[in-house]
Amino acid sequence: MSGMVEFNADTSSDIVAERLLRDGSRLAACLALFVRHLHGAVREARPTPADWRQAIRFLTEVGHASDERRQEWILLSDLLGVTALIEEINAQRPKGATPNTPRGPFYRAAAPRYPAGASISLDGVGEPLAFHGRVADLDGRPVPGATVETWQANAEGHYENQQPDRQPDFNLRGIFLADAGGAFHYRTVKPAGYAVPDDGPVGQLLHGIGYPLRRPAHLQFMISAPGFETLTTQVYDRADPQVTEDAVYGVREELLGDFREHRESGGKRSWALDFTFVLARSRNGRRAP
Amino acid sequence: MSGMVEFNADTSSDIVAERLLRDGSRLAACLALFVRHLHGAVREARPTPADWRQAIRFLTEVGHASDERRQEWILLSDLLGVTALIEEINAQRPKGATPNTPRGPFYRAAAPRYPAGASISLDGVGEPLAFHGRVADLDGRPVPGATVETWQANAEGHYENQQPDRQPDFNLRGIFLADAGGAFHYRTVKPAGYAVPDDGPVGQLLHGIGYPLRRPAHLQFMISAPGFETLTTQVYDRADPQVTEDAVYGVREELLGDFREHRESGGKRSWALDFTFVLARSRNGRRAP
Repeated sequence: MSGMVEFNADTSSDIVAERLLRDGSRLAACLALFVRHLHGAVREARPTPADWRQAIRFLTEVGHASDERRQEWILLSDLLGVTALIEEINAQRPKGATPNTPRGPFYRAAAPRYPAGASISLDGVGEPLAFHGRVADLDGRPVPGATVETWQANAEGHYENQQPDRQPDFNLRGIFLADAGGAFHYRTVKPAGYAVPDDGPVGQLLHGIGYPLRRPAHLQFMISAPGFETLTTQVYDRADPQVTEDAVYGVREELLGDFREHRESGGKRSWALDFTFVLARSRNGRRAP
Repeated sequence: MSGMVEFNADTSSDIVAERLLRDGSRLAACLALFVRHLHGAVREARPTPADWRQAIRFLTEVGHASDERRQEWILLSDLLGVTALIEEINAQRPKGATPNTPRGPFYRAAAPRYPAGASISLDGVGEPLAFHGRVADLDGRPVPGATVETWQANAEGHYENQQPDRQPDFNLRGIFLADAGGAFHYRTVKPAGYAVPDDGPVGQLLHGIGYPLRRPAHLQFMISAPGFETLTTQVYDRADPQVTEDAVYGVREELLGDFREHRESGGKRSWALDFTFVLARSRNGRRAP
């Protein structure tokens, strides 16, 4: 033992890091960094062994709640702002480009391709919404032929893959092409906001302390074009009071859209929304992973 | 959105903490503190979304590897020094008292009670060890009648509850009482060190970067007496080269024991070990949880 540094609250993270960093890999460096912050948090919070057992129990429950259909870890990461922080750190988008937001758990690949003007509402339930989009570059020039993939919750705040028995397959999902002027348009229904799942350990924990667990109404987009970074983003309803308190920290000022209300002849309400998406040119031909 | 602080890498942890701290509970305060350190780690490590997906995948695997019989989270906490750090923070033992170490996963309640001098080796496999212990207070006075619970791995480094088919039930576990002079003694076999489990995601990750995953040979004790803090500790074999690199950071200078070798008449080896345990008086009649 002679010459060995004594393990105590002041030396602990150095001692653990020394063992980790004998390996020169990036993984080892990341683990050492994480250990330093984790030990710092423990030194500051001073959990008792009973507190720590409770924390371990929580982690165990989160682990058991995660399966093929449900990812409670991603929910935890989303709700604690980590997913949004990682998006911010990696975005490095030029000023003026539309911000990226995480793609989220409700995306499905292989959505149907539609001609301009088609409706993606396969059940017709909800207040009609006419969406007119424009895809432009940083100088305001159109990006013709951009591929625009969209998906959204229905008028009750549910995605079709959350309700396979109650909504048609691929309801409220579709792929459109921007025209020569960078414009595209389609018909849909006005989405509603929704609560994130609160029946698992993460939702239960945060619900118990009154933490906001709702998302404002929004439309989701993934827009790609040769020579540009692929944009994954969401357009929020500025009139939804929840925009100041999105549970997963996706709302940005530039992503607020103004839904314009129309009264149709029969008194039925419908809506229109225009939005311009600004793409950044790719630095190396494709977006960073 | 007016007046709302923009979510970015500089503001993220403040924004999340503000929502958490609307609740005045200690849980909310701990979560806010943890979020601050976690966002700090993310800002420093700058993981890509792909890195983060890999981290989520690791957490998911750790969760799935944990069940009634196996606690991969505790293993992770142990191997990253967090369990030992929490022990240090909570110990606040007076100078001269024997250090506590975490109880570990191999403890079993309801071990058999034995008279002084009995053997706890039920299969007789291994080199005999005679243990002579003494329980004293900080002034060196004996603590008569202290209850001494001991458990240990066998000569191949396995606890009986790891090998229910190969070792007798409660092999190498027993409860003794210190006599009027605070002394106790029993017979056993010399334990071997062992590797922590490396077949789960935690062991695989750390094995992959060459992190030390072995524990030095040791005997485990839980010693209680009215008016004293209960001591949970381990006595290590000073001659085991692994004492400088215990996988779970339990070794302390004061916990090193000198195993004395004896050659018996037939050439067979046996061992003797003396150790004094120094108990601290309890501040409020019982040990903090």
